[in-house]
Amino acid sequence: MIYFDNAASSGVKPAAVAEAVADALKNLSANPGRGGHKLALAAARTVCRTRADAAEFFGLDNPENVIFTANCTAALNLAVFGTQAKGHVITTANEHNSVIRPLYELERRGLIRITVLPPNESGTVTAESIARSIRTDTYLIAVNHVSNVTGAVAPITEIGRLAGFKNIPLLVDGAQSAGHLKIDMRASNISMLAVAPHKGLGAPQGIGMLLFADGVTLKPILFGGTGTESENPYQPLISPEAYESGTLNTPGIAGLRAALAYTAAHMHTHAEILRGLSLRLYDGLKKIKNVRVYSPRDTAAGVISFNIGDLPSGSVSDILNDEYDICTRPGLHCAPLIHKHLGTISQGAVRASLSAYNNAEEAAFFLTAVKEIADHPF
Amino acid sequence: MIYFDNAASSGVKPAAVAEAVADALKNLSANPGRGGHKLALAAARTVCRTRADAAEFFGLDNPENVIFTANCTAALNLAVFGTQAKGHVITTANEHNSVIRPLYELERRGLIRITVLPPNESGTVTAESIARSIRTDTYLIAVNHVSNVTGAVAPITEIGRLAGFKNIPLLVDGAQSAGHLKIDMRASNISMLAVAPHKGLGAPQGIGMLLFADGVTLKPILFGGTGTESENPYQPLISPEAYESGTLNTPGIAGLRAALAYTAAHMHTHAEILRGLSLRLYDGLKKIKNVRVYSPRDTAAGVISFNIGDLPSGSVSDILNDEYDICTRPGLHCAPLIHKHLGTISQGAVRASLSAYNNAEEAAFFLTAVKEIADHPF
Repeated sequence: MIYFDNAASSGVKPAAVAEAVADALKNLSANPGRGGHKLALAAARTVCRTRADAAEFFGLDNPENVIFTANCTAALNLAVFGTQAKGHVITTANEHNSVIRPLYELERRGLIRITVLPPNESGTVTAESIARSIRTDTYLIAVNHVSNVTGAVAPITEIGRLAGFKNIPLLVDGAQSAGHLKIDMRASNISMLAVAPHKGLGAPQGIGMLLFADGVTLKPILFGGTGTESENPYQPLISPEAYESGTLNTPGIAGLRAALAYTAAHMHTHAEILRGLSLRLYDGLKKIKNVRVYSPRDTAAGVISFNIGDLPSGSVSDILNDEYDICTRPGLHCAPLIHKHLGTISQGAVRASLSAYNNAEEAAFFLTAVKEIADHPF
Repeated sequence: MIYFDNAASSGVKPAAVAEAVADALKNLSANPGRGGHKLALAAARTVCRTRADAAEFFGLDNPENVIFTANCTAALNLAVFGTQAKGHVITTANEHNSVIRPLYELERRGLIRITVLPPNESGTVTAESIARSIRTDTYLIAVNHVSNVTGAVAPITEIGRLAGFKNIPLLVDGAQSAGHLKIDMRASNISMLAVAPHKGLGAPQGIGMLLFADGVTLKPILFGGTGTESENPYQPLISPEAYESGTLNTPGIAGLRAALAYTAAHMHTHAEILRGLSLRLYDGLKKIKNVRVYSPRDTAAGVISFNIGDLPSGSVSDILNDEYDICTRPGLHCAPLIHKHLGTISQGAVRASLSAYNNAEEAAFFLTAVKEIADHPF
């Protein structure tokens, strides 16, 4: 079995992550931030340390601005709805539905206008194209860091510099980049960063993060018990509790903490392995007749999408699964605008997404499989 | 160490739960509902089976109406915001902030009016008191099943009958009851049930559920990738995907499934143990001079709150923790209205919340501790 669907969810969780989860289920079963007895404090300490570790990992000054959510989508919803103003938002055709659908919902309610920038020939947007789209009422720039369809990497530091210069908050969707590429919120002037820890970081599913810089004003979007100001029937506004109503996912957070430590120690090596495997796949696919590749050669997060002639992407993915035991993801990958741009809205595309746990033999077998399908489609 | 804070989060997770989580981290790491390869399907099957098991456990006809959320608070937010209309809501002073704060937020926005019913001498509301409060524009009745402060049990079947007769949806907050008391949505005519699986069911933290009956119209409150209708930039409206944007918590859901099976097998025995321990605690506390108990004698979910004279509840809880190694929770328990009703808004109350994993020796030791504190307060 070859798992090439790491962009959907990483196939291998480091042993340390599983151990941290198991330990939390046994020893951190109390409710963090609810009550002052020693078991509640032990759980709260783990949560608190994970905030600190995440802040350090992503170059954020204030760990109290690390918000734990159910997943990256919930983090992006908090960012989009939490900063909503009457005005204009700039975003890109590379965005995932987790950004597109919240924005389109706000537009449908008549609250905002959206400019969607198409990618250039490198598959990404530039700071210049964003600069040209800024209006007097632009209150948010939302940019996907690494496309989950093509793997193209946006120049977030340049965009961050522009955003800082124009005093417009920059939201970066780091779903596909966090854990693969170094992200420094301070250096890149990122106002808000959404993270999907179960992807590039190897954390368990069930935990997401929004990190935001001091100065960003966020309205809560979920209301409930915070363990703070209990006598107040209205939602308190102090971070992080204001945005984390209800019981936190302590085992998930403990797993995330182990994943951050593991990734910090291995990111450099893993990135090199991933780059090597990606190039091998890219170059191999380019050599196969009748195969069309939609990714740039340099796909830092191991995401490569392609099609074989006019074959429906779902059929190719099924053959890879059924005949070769290779897991890929066909279709639109919840990112319709980029598929419209690529002209693949009805065919979709087959996405192979790698991790550093894959190897050269798997890549070679995959290329053989694609060649066989391309040579003898049915 | 004696853990009497099970109403905040159950202290013991059954071994089968931890094993299911560990297995999911290893074997179900793909993304359920995203892609059709065998690993994604394996994860999706577990999610699907958990929906079926949860529907059966709670007497719900349609498993597609089991919505997985981050926690019970997120489930209650979905219920309150998802059914919001211009009109009137009836609720009770027993509600937790996870119901109060969403409702007060809607009231503050000028969208709804709220009637909050005080509990009667048994600590709960009656169907009659609700009937008297129904207005022509009442569109929701939201009732806490078991108070997380007093342990009082609401007559949800009678209330459900009334709600059905009046054709008004009934939302039941089952945070403290699910796993302790039998809940049958069909028999009790419950339109929506919110569950906190990490409490009475012994599931991991990080997973909640909203179950809703066919016929209930819910608007999504989180927007993003659903793995369905990917070409649609607006949120699809088909359950369950419409309400579960982003990657699900597969290990949490696998743990929940094991917890449901374990609870189904042990609920009757556990309820008996819990009732015995609760009576022992209640009767013991009532005998201690200067102790005031706020719970009815019959506290089906093992929740008993009390104070010692005028001592701040936080001080008593601290002494129990520091001197006796007993974990309790003081303060307002995120339920301000009932504390206002009890006259304990500034003192709070000490809550001892039991589980079937506690025993008579622990209860006896706890009673001795409370007596010592009551006899020699400082």
